[in-house]
Amino acid sequence: MRALAALWSARSVAVIGATERPGALGGRPVEFLLRYGYQGRVLPVHPKNEKVFGLPAYPTVAACPGPVDLAMIMVAADRVPAAIEDCVAAGVRAAIVCSSGFAETGAEGALRQEALVAQAKAGGLRVLGPNCIGSVGVASGQVTSFSPLFEAASTRLVPGSLALVSQSGALGFGAVSLAFERGLGLGWAVSTGNEAEVTALEVLATLAEEPGCTGLLGYVESLADVQSLRRLAAAGKPVALVKAGRSAAGARAVASHTGALATDDRVTDAVLRRYGIVRVSDVDELLDVGAAFAAGTRPGGDRVAVVTTSGGSGILAADALAQHGLRLAELAAGTRAALAEVVPAYGSVENPVDVTAAVMARPELFRRCLDVVAADPAVDVVLACFCVLTGSDVAGIAEALARVRRESGKAVLVARTGAEHLAPGAGAVLRAGGVPVYSTPGRAVLVAAAAVRAGARVAAVPGTAGTAGGIAAPARGISEADFKELLRENGIPVPVGRVVDSAEDAVAAVGEVGGRAVFKAVVPGLVHKTEAGGVELDVDPVAAAGVYERLAGLGGAVLVEEFVTGAVEVLVGVAPGPCGPMLALGLGGILAEVLDDVVLAPLPVDVGEVRRMVGELRGSALLYGVRGRAAVDVDALVDLVVRVSSLVSGWGGQVDLNPVAVLPRGVRVLDAVYLAEGAD
Amino acid sequence: MRALAALWSARSVAVIGATERPGALGGRPVEFLLRYGYQGRVLPVHPKNEKVFGLPAYPTVAACPGPVDLAMIMVAADRVPAAIEDCVAAGVRAAIVCSSGFAETGAEGALRQEALVAQAKAGGLRVLGPNCIGSVGVASGQVTSFSPLFEAASTRLVPGSLALVSQSGALGFGAVSLAFERGLGLGWAVSTGNEAEVTALEVLATLAEEPGCTGLLGYVESLADVQSLRRLAAAGKPVALVKAGRSAAGARAVASHTGALATDDRVTDAVLRRYGIVRVSDVDELLDVGAAFAAGTRPGGDRVAVVTTSGGSGILAADALAQHGLRLAELAAGTRAALAEVVPAYGSVENPVDVTAAVMARPELFRRCLDVVAADPAVDVVLACFCVLTGSDVAGIAEALARVRRESGKAVLVARTGAEHLAPGAGAVLRAGGVPVYSTPGRAVLVAAAAVRAGARVAAVPGTAGTAGGIAAPARGISEADFKELLRENGIPVPVGRVVDSAEDAVAAVGEVGGRAVFKAVVPGLVHKTEAGGVELDVDPVAAAGVYERLAGLGGAVLVEEFVTGAVEVLVGVAPGPCGPMLALGLGGILAEVLDDVVLAPLPVDVGEVRRMVGELRGSALLYGVRGRAAVDVDALVDLVVRVSSLVSGWGGQVDLNPVAVLPRGVRVLDAVYLAEGAD
Repeated sequence: MRALAALWSARSVAVIGATERPGALGGRPVEFLLRYGYQGRVLPVHPKNEKVFGLPAYPTVAACPGPVDLAMIMVAADRVPAAIEDCVAAGVRAAIVCSSGFAETGAEGALRQEALVAQAKAGGLRVLGPNCIGSVGVASGQVTSFSPLFEAASTRLVPGSLALVSQSGALGFGAVSLAFERGLGLGWAVSTGNEAEVTALEVLATLAEEPGCTGLLGYVESLADVQSLRRLAAAGKPVALVKAGRSAAGARAVASHTGALATDDRVTDAVLRRYGIVRVSDVDELLDVGAAFAAGTRPGGDRVAVVTTSGGSGILAADALAQHGLRLAELAAGTRAALAEVVPAYGSVENPVDVTAAVMARPELFRRCLDVVAADPAVDVVLACFCVLTGSDVAGIAEALARVRRESGKAVLVARTGAEHLAPGAGAVLRAGGVPVYSTPGRAVLVAAAAVRAGARVAAVPGTAGTAGGIAAPARGISEADFKELLRENGIPVPVGRVVDSAEDAVAAVGEVGGRAVFKAVVPGLVHKTEAGGVELDVDPVAAAGVYERLAGLGGAVLVEEFVTGAVEVLVGVAPGPCGPMLALGLGGILAEVLDDVVLAPLPVDVGEVRRMVGELRGSALLYGVRGRAAVDVDALVDLVVRVSSLVSGWGGQVDLNPVAVLPRGVRVLDAVYLAEGAD
Repeated sequence: MRALAALWSARSVAVIGATERPGALGGRPVEFLLRYGYQGRVLPVHPKNEKVFGLPAYPTVAACPGPVDLAMIMVAADRVPAAIEDCVAAGVRAAIVCSSGFAETGAEGALRQEALVAQAKAGGLRVLGPNCIGSVGVASGQVTSFSPLFEAASTRLVPGSLALVSQSGALGFGAVSLAFERGLGLGWAVSTGNEAEVTALEVLATLAEEPGCTGLLGYVESLADVQSLRRLAAAGKPVALVKAGRSAAGARAVASHTGALATDDRVTDAVLRRYGIVRVSDVDELLDVGAAFAAGTRPGGDRVAVVTTSGGSGILAADALAQHGLRLAELAAGTRAALAEVVPAYGSVENPVDVTAAVMARPELFRRCLDVVAADPAVDVVLACFCVLTGSDVAGIAEALARVRRESGKAVLVARTGAEHLAPGAGAVLRAGGVPVYSTPGRAVLVAAAAVRAGARVAAVPGTAGTAGGIAAPARGISEADFKELLRENGIPVPVGRVVDSAEDAVAAVGEVGGRAVFKAVVPGLVHKTEAGGVELDVDPVAAAGVYERLAGLGGAVLVEEFVTGAVEVLVGVAPGPCGPMLALGLGGILAEVLDDVVLAPLPVDVGEVRRMVGELRGSALLYGVRGRAAVDVDALVDLVVRVSSLVSGWGGQVDLNPVAVLPRGVRVLDAVYLAEGAD
C-alpha cells in the first residue's frame, strides 16, 4: 500500500494528544472514528490518560500494539517534533499534523516547518499538513479529522465515488457538508493545509489511481507540484479544480495564507486546459460539476439540443451556450419534421425546441420528442429546461429523461428553474438515472461545458520536456546567423541572406536578396541590436558598402537578409517555467504594446492547438483579414509554431522569435534569439 | 386607480371561460382565488354554467353585478374578440388574456394580435398578454393566474416587498416558486407574455410607484419601451433584470419566442447602467440580488472588508471582488492594531481579515473584530465568510452580524459555504437582521457589486433627448467647414484653417497654418472625401496651388487646415437609437479595425462618465501612454466629449467626429460630419 493511502484506508490509527477534556480538539478524531463506525483499530496516545472514550490509551505510538498505519498529531506545535520522532520510532509511514503554528504564522514558524519536513523525510514518514483538518475515508467511516462538521448530530456520511481534496480545510469540509446536503456522495475527503510535504495535487493523483474513484474535485492554491499534476492527468479521470489566487489581490492573499508562490493566471489556465482539467471559480460550481462527474456525464462533443417548455429558459440556455463556448446543435430536417408531428404550432421545432406544456402533460409525447432529438447525429448533449414541475406527469417525464440517457448513451442534463418541493421525487429519479439537475439553464450549461472540456483531454498527456524533438540544444551564445541556419535546417523559414565579410561582398549580397536588404551586426552578446544601432532596414546597393563599414565597426560579422514588407508581425517564444516549457504566441507591433495580446500553451503543441491559440488572440482578425485588409498565411504560421514546438521541446532554455513576419504567402523569422538555461 | 393596478389590487375579478371541467385551465383562477383567501368578488363567466366552484356564474361580463376591475380571458383564441367586446361593453379597464394562438404562432396569429390590440385600445381596455400566465397580488391573495405552481398543495404565498415581473410566464412563476422556497417574500408577480400592449417594463414602472415596493426583479426580452424604462428608473428603487438574448443565438431565439427585435447587447448594457439597473444573467442571480434588495443592502461605496474564518474563502472573495470591479478596503493602521489584540498569530489582520476559529468560538471577540472593521471609514461593505458553522456559538455570531449591520448602517453580507442544517437557525437570524446569506464568496460578491451599482444611479435620471444643449440642429447637408465652425463656436477644438477661393489664397493659407497643410474638397453630398480623392495630406506651399486646382475641380470649395501629426486618433459619434441618442467613443486606426474597440453610453454624459468610458477601452493604454509612448491629453478628450454631448443632445441626427486627434497637448476634430434625421 502507498503510504498516502493510509489517509483513507488505514487499518489502524494512532491519535497523538487524544483526550476527553472538554473543548480540546485532541479527542475529536477518536470520538468521530467511533461514531462513524470505523472498523480498524483506534489507538489513543496520551502521556497520562489510560482510557479515552472507553478505549485503552498508550503513552507513545511505539507502545501501541501491532502496526500503526496512520498517526494523527493533535498536539501544540512545540511538541510536534517529539511526536514525529515517536512515529518514526514506531515505523509509521504516514502522519496527519493538525497542529498550527508553522509557516502560516511567519518566519519563525516557517523554520519550524522546514525542520519538521527534514525530520519526517529522514524517518521515511509522509506528512499531511501541518495546519490541516485531516482526512476522511467515507466507505470505511475513517473520520481522521477534527472538523466540526462531524460533531453535528445531523451529519451523515453520504458515500459515493467522488474525491474532494482541499488545501483549505475549512472550505474543504464546508464543501463536503454541502455535497452531503445535496445527496452528492463522496468516497474521500482530504485537507492538506500548509502542504509542507504532501500537496493537494499529490493526494488527488493518488486518489485518481483508486479503482472506485470516478471523478475528482479540488481546491488548490498552487500548481507547483507539476509532477503530481501530470500523474493526475494521466489517470484519465475527470477533474475539476478551484485554483484560487486568480486576481492580484487573491494572489497576495494566497501568499499570506500558505506562502504559495503565485503562478501567472494565464499559465494556470493553459496548463489546466492542456491536462483536460476543468477550472471553476467557486465551491458551488465545483459541486455542480461534480454531480455531472458522478452521473457519468461525458459528452461526445459540444453540440447541444435544448428541449424546453419555457421559451425564456430556452433563450437563457442559448445565451449561456454562447458564453461557455458550446454550440446549439443544428437539427436535421427529418428531426424537425418528426417533432412537428407532436409539437403544437405555438411551440418551436427549431433548437431550442419548445415542446410546450401540452406535450409535457402527456409523457408519451414528451418521450417521442426526446427520442427524436437524441437520435439526431448532430446532437451530443440534450439539455432539458423546465420551470414549475408539478403533478402526476412528473414521474413519467423524469423516467423518460433517464431512459433516453441510458438508451442513447448521450449526455442528458436538466435545468429545473422551479421549487423542488412541488414534485419532490423528480430530482432523485433523474439523478438515479444519470441525469444531473440544476436550478437554472446557466448553471446546467456551465456544467455541460465543463464535461465537454474534461472529455477533450489531449489523447496522450505529454510527458516531461526533453522527450520530443531530438535535436540537441544550441550552444550557449549561438549567433543570430547560426541560430537562423539551425531553424532553416529544421524547416522553419528564415529570410534569404548570408553573412558577408567585406563591403564588396555586402553589395553583392544585396543583389542576391532582391535589391533591398536588412543589415544586422552579428556581435556576440549583443542582444538588443536595434537599440545599439546594429540594424539597418531597407538598404539598397548604393548604400550597402557604407552600412557594412559602420556595422562591421561594432566588432563582429554582418548579416545581410532580404527586406520583408507587407507582413503582419507576430512573436513566438518559448520559456521554461514552473509547469514546464511554455509557448507564447502573440501579435507584434502596437497590439502587443497596448493589449499584451499573447496566448500561452505548454509544449508540445499540435496543429489543432495552435489553430485554437491563433483564434484566441484578441487581434486575430488582423491575421484572418479585416475591413479590406488581405488575410495572411495563417497555415504557414501554424506550421512554423508546430515545428518550433517539436524542435525546442527538449532544450530547456529560452527561445524568442520576434518578430516573425506572416506574409500573404509564407512566413519568415526576422529575428531569432536563443538564451541557454541559466543565461541572463 | 391606474387601470394596471387591477392586475394586483382588483376589488372584483371576472374569469371568462370559468369551468369545473377536469383538465381545463379556465377554472383554475377561480379555484386559486378561493384557495388563497382573496377577499374581492370573484365572478365566473360562462355561457352555460350557473355555478363554478360554488360561486354563481354569469353568461357575460356585462351581466355581472357591480363594477368589474379586472377580467381574465381564458377562452380559445378565436373567441377572444367576443370576450374583449364583452369587457368593453361592461366598462372593464384591464384584462389578462391567457389564450395562446397569437403572434407566437406566426403571421396569421400576429394579425389576430394586431386586431386584438386595436379592439382593446378603441374600447379603453388595457390588455396583459396574450399568451401569458397572469398576475398575483400576494398581500390580497389575488392569484389571477393559472400557473400550476398554485395547484400544488405545498405552495404557500410568502408575502414581501419585492416585485417580480417576467415576460416568460413559465420562467417567471418558476422564479416565484424558488423565491418562496428560499423564504424570499414577494408582494407582486406578473407575467406579460406576448406584450401586445402592456410591456414588462411598464408593469415594473407601475409597481415601482407602489409605496410598499422596495425592489424590483424582472426577466425581459426587449427594452424597446424606453418611456417605461425611464419611468422605472425615475422611481429610484433598486431594480435587477435578466435581459435575455445576449448572444446572437439567444437573440434569434428571442425573435422566435415573442417577436421582440434584438437590441445590440452593448446598447442594452449601456442603457441599463445609465439607469442604475443591475443586469444579471440568470434566475438564481436575480433572486440572490433580490434578497439583498429585500434586506435593504445599499452600500455607500465599493470598498469591501472581508472577515473570514477560512483563508480559502478570503482568497476566493478577493478574486471575486477583482472580477466584479469592487475593491478590498485598505484598513487603517489603527484598525489593524485593534484587530491584532484579538486575532491570534496564525490569523491575519490584513484584509481579508482571518479572525480564526479561536475567535469564532468566543462571540464576544468576534463582535469586537466586527465593530472595529465596521468603524473604519475606509470600509463600505463588510463581507463575512464562513464555512462549517455548528454549535452554540452560531446564534451569537449571527446576532453580532445583525447588530453591526443595524448600528453601523453599513452593508453586511454573509457567505456561508457549509450546510444549513448544521446550525439551522443561523440563516433566519441573519436575514431577519438585514444580512443576506449566500452559499459562496463568489455569489455574495456578485450581489455586493449589484447593490453598489444599483446605488450608483446617476443623481438625476436624464429626461428625453432634446432638453439639453439649447443649440438648434444644423441644417441638413451642412458643409464640413460650416460644421467645424459651429463646433469651434461651442468650444470644441478644430484645426486652424479656412476655406480658400483661389490658388494664391491657398498658398497664403498654407503659410497661415504653419507651412504644412491638409487640403479638403468641400462638395455638398461628398461624404467619402478620401475615397473620392478629395483629401490631400501634408501639402507644402510649393504644392499648394496645384492641389488647390485639382480639388477645386471637384466642383466645390477647398478647405485648408493645419496638418496635425503625433496624435492618437479616436472616434466620437452620436447616433439615434431605440433607447435614445447613443454616444460612441472608440479608438481609431488599426485598433478600431481589428478590435471594434468602442464604448457606448446614452446621452447626455458627464465628466465622470466619459472618464469611465475611456478607461473601458481595451486599448486605453494607448491614450495613457504605454511602453515608452508618451501619454496624450485625455483631459482635453474628456472635455471635448462632454461638450459634444451637451451640444448635440437635442439634435436627433447622426454626428461623426472621426478621427479626433488627441495630442500630447490638446485635441482637434480632424473630420466632422452631420447627417440630419432621415438622411442616408
